[in-house]
Amino acid sequence: MTTRLCRTFQTAPAAVPRDDSAKYLRSGITAEGFSAPDWLVPDLEDGTAPEMKSEALENIQELLPERAPDFPGEIWPRVEWSYDSEAIRERGIDQIETLAETVGDHINGVVVPKVGRLEDVQAAESAVAAAARAADADIEFAVIIESARARSDLREIALSGRESLLTALVFGPVDYTAELGGREIGQRPTWSGLHEALSNEASANDLLAIGGPFDRLFRERAGVTFYNGDGYADHVEREAQVGLDGSWSLHPNQTAQANRIHLPTADELRTAVKKIEAFVEAKDTGTGAVAIDGQMVDEATLKNFENTVETVRTVHDAHEEQTKERYEGVLLDRTLALE
Amino acid sequence: MTTRLCRTFQTAPAAVPRDDSAKYLRSGITAEGFSAPDWLVPDLEDGTAPEMKSEALENIQELLPERAPDFPGEIWPRVEWSYDSEAIRERGIDQIETLAETVGDHINGVVVPKVGRLEDVQAAESAVAAAARAADADIEFAVIIESARARSDLREIALSGRESLLTALVFGPVDYTAELGGREIGQRPTWSGLHEALSNEASANDLLAIGGPFDRLFRERAGVTFYNGDGYADHVEREAQVGLDGSWSLHPNQTAQANRIHLPTADELRTAVKKIEAFVEAKDTGTGAVAIDGQMVDEATLKNFENTVETVRTVHDAHEEQTKERYEGVLLDRTLALE
Amino acid sequence: MTTRLCRTFQTAPAAVPRDDSAKYLRSGITAEGFSAPDWLVPDLEDGTAPEMKSEALENIQELLPERAPDFPGEIWPRVEWSYDSEAIRERGIDQIETLAETVGDHINGVVVPKVGRLEDVQAAESAVAAAARAADADIEFAVIIESARARSDLREIALSGRESLLTALVFGPVDYTAELGGREIGQRPTWSGLHEALSNEASANDLLAIGGPFDRLFRERAGVTFYNGDGYADHVEREAQVGLDGSWSLHPNQTAQANRIHLPTADELRTAVKKIEAFVEAKDTGTGAVAIDGQMVDEATLKNFENTVETVRTVHDAHEEQTKERYEGVLLDRTLALE
Repeated sequence: MTTRLCRTFQTAPAAVPRDDSAKYLRSGITAEGFSAPDWLVPDLEDGTAPEMKSEALENIQELLPERAPDFPGEIWPRVEWSYDSEAIRERGIDQIETLAETVGDHINGVVVPKVGRLEDVQAAESAVAAAARAADADIEFAVIIESARARSDLREIALSGRESLLTALVFGPVDYTAELGGREIGQRPTWSGLHEALSNEASANDLLAIGGPFDRLFRERAGVTFYNGDGYADHVEREAQVGLDGSWSLHPNQTAQANRIHLPTADELRTAVKKIEAFVEAKDTGTGAVAIDGQMVDEATLKNFENTVETVRTVHDAHEEQTKERYEGVLLDRTLALE
Repeated sequence: MTTRLCRTFQTAPAAVPRDDSAKYLRSGITAEGFSAPDWLVPDLEDGTAPEMKSEALENIQELLPERAPDFPGEIWPRVEWSYDSEAIRERGIDQIETLAETVGDHINGVVVPKVGRLEDVQAAESAVAAAARAADADIEFAVIIESARARSDLREIALSGRESLLTALVFGPVDYTAELGGREIGQRPTWSGLHEALSNEASANDLLAIGGPFDRLFRERAGVTFYNGDGYADHVEREAQVGLDGSWSLHPNQTAQANRIHLPTADELRTAVKKIEAFVEAKDTGTGAVAIDGQMVDEATLKNFENTVETVRTVHDAHEEQTKERYEGVLLDRTLALE
Repeated sequence: MTTRLCRTFQTAPAAVPRDDSAKYLRSGITAEGFSAPDWLVPDLEDGTAPEMKSEALENIQELLPERAPDFPGEIWPRVEWSYDSEAIRERGIDQIETLAETVGDHINGVVVPKVGRLEDVQAAESAVAAAARAADADIEFAVIIESARARSDLREIALSGRESLLTALVFGPVDYTAELGGREIGQRPTWSGLHEALSNEASANDLLAIGGPFDRLFRERAGVTFYNGDGYADHVEREAQVGLDGSWSLHPNQTAQANRIHLPTADELRTAVKKIEAFVEAKDTGTGAVAIDGQMVDEATLKNFENTVETVRTVHDAHEEQTKERYEGVLLDRTLALE
């Protein structure tokens, strides 16, 4: 449980073959309300075609100085990287250096995909640390766990984050499924063991844990194609359930959903506030554990309710319009009044 | 698979704000039949309020010498501990020393909650070993796995139990869910990956594995509140399925259910006995694997049936009234006749 | 994802108490079409009764020189082994030496069951390497992960395979469930965490991962007993979904099903070919990620489709009759035409 906000990790290709090649980047950085991602990830990797990489970098360099100061979240460009290609890693190091040098003050970190075992993550860390030092900028990094090797070393990679610039562990299910040779039979593999481990290792080392993209953006039925809102919401709910701090978004609609799902519902908040109040009162009478509405509540249970309250407060501080939209005034007041 | 009985791990607050502050402790230690827990856990930690800790310790010191000799199971007080608070660990060490000194002959071990990484478990082990030595008492210990750090080090913690006083690994889902920031969306996270790992690491090192508490003691429907017997039974069945040796109980009803669920059903026992008998007969004709009632049975399958028989025998030795209530006489005789 | 074929791992007792004691071995090695296993595993361990072990070895020595040259798959005898019995390990070493010496040219490797921790796997590796060297034969080995200790050391065991003769990790759920004390309540434990880990560690180290046997060969309903085709197909589909390369078969019907399930369906192949073609076209216009039939496709997604195509090609090269039976000619041609 961390209170640094990253409910949404929205990737946007930094250049697309359109008249305005920065179209998606621009729409991400100017989004508002629940559609504004907590983290915007300008993509220099798979989302951008090989021959548009330099234009992508230029778009970032042009747009960030202008727009980043007003963007309410964090900005984390994704660079190229691959544990099994030195050439790609070299391109990645160049991109990290260029970003640090030219827009180092406007980004919070870089996202490094396709890392392998611990040593590969350490190589990425060295590159980020060197670039940040050279540019005298404050830059962290996140890795995408999407190779069998990174999953195998997950515990050691996360542990390295205690003393390094590593800030977040992100899941990359598409590459991961390809590496393992997984198949969609009936449904896709859900990798629930990996989700549990990601959430655990992030929590054990004070890192953020972020889920993977859901690529089935649209569905077709009886000849009509529509936004797959149920598929994505189910996906995000599974991630929130096991304690991932945020979800990957590929589309403003996904961002709007994930920002809401990672914010407690009014019912959750009402229950939390009520049980905290009741437990505090019971403790005053000398009780250690007490049944409230059929649930046995003790100090451990209390922490779960405090998490709910803490998340609401953190979002309230950063996005008052969101909490005011979701909760009635009385409930919000009781929440903010808790010590 | 171990045959030391711990089907039920019943915590009882060692002091509550009532006329008889030892009410729950007393009812636990005097319970009979299926309501008697295999392990009774007098609770000095979260179940007992801060200002009642000394009264709780006194209740234990008063009740155990009188009642423990007739109690059919084991007694394991839970002390205070926390990987992230030295002050709490110091209180815990005091409690361990006092228990060893004053009731060391009446307890089998102590339960140490909220342990962190391996080093923290080793610190707890040193405290228990020193107290046992000083009191010349035979005292083991169990840890509650409820922090991300302990889950991360589970394999190493369990391995340390091969050569130490560590006897059991207990799951603590409430604290654990709070640490990871898990949420109840639709249903609670079930942590099935952790269950598998707990069962495996306990088995690999001859430790006991015990599930976590189910706090939804009561349900309400259409204005009537009632004991949530289905919720708890489902919970215990999931734990038994993956080989946990026992389940946590917060209430005599839960104990009565978990003692039964962790004892093979009459159908399970009947099938096991029948297939063991048929396989032994088939082996006499020179067959290594044989289809019995549609199932291909070999030496490996046999072990599963032998587990069933072994569990029944162990319970029979300790609680004849339970096996006699559950199985008809002929089946029980065939079971006990197997070599 | 590996393209060495092992869709089916069919064990056959090497001797049974029948007039033709090599009956099952013979039927396995002469099977054709979808009923021919990719790997045939003549069983000297649990499938063969103790007093028939020498006859089993003789059957292998007699049948392999005659039939192995025409067998389309690989041949991997299973020897005896056990981490907790030196006597059994000695018998296993004898069997490995005899096999290497007498039929070393006709087998691809040996299957070593019931291994324990890493050191035990290393002991098996030494035995195989020594026997192969002495016989000047090319012999690899596979281990069956069916003890809690082997599961605990899975990551290290798999890692050792990078530089050793270790080629495949096979799951043994029956022994494993017995070790952990798992129970069939409602359904059997599915060990999905273990499946994920097996698939991951195999992929991280270029090993094959193979699922465990499904022993409920037959079902009875309303007085009629029949082949349990649904039970097995569900079992194999779960394994294929998380990327296991193959499944264990105990019966020619199971082999016929698993060979088909581990081959992409016509629908899967059609989708893969269509999306590869569409993505290649989109890339030519400078797009990095593009929505095709509602799915956001990029380089990572592409790899999954390429896996599908690659599997079909590998099976086509080895068993043209199987791909021709399954896919219409036009689709197969488009598949083979992709570069």
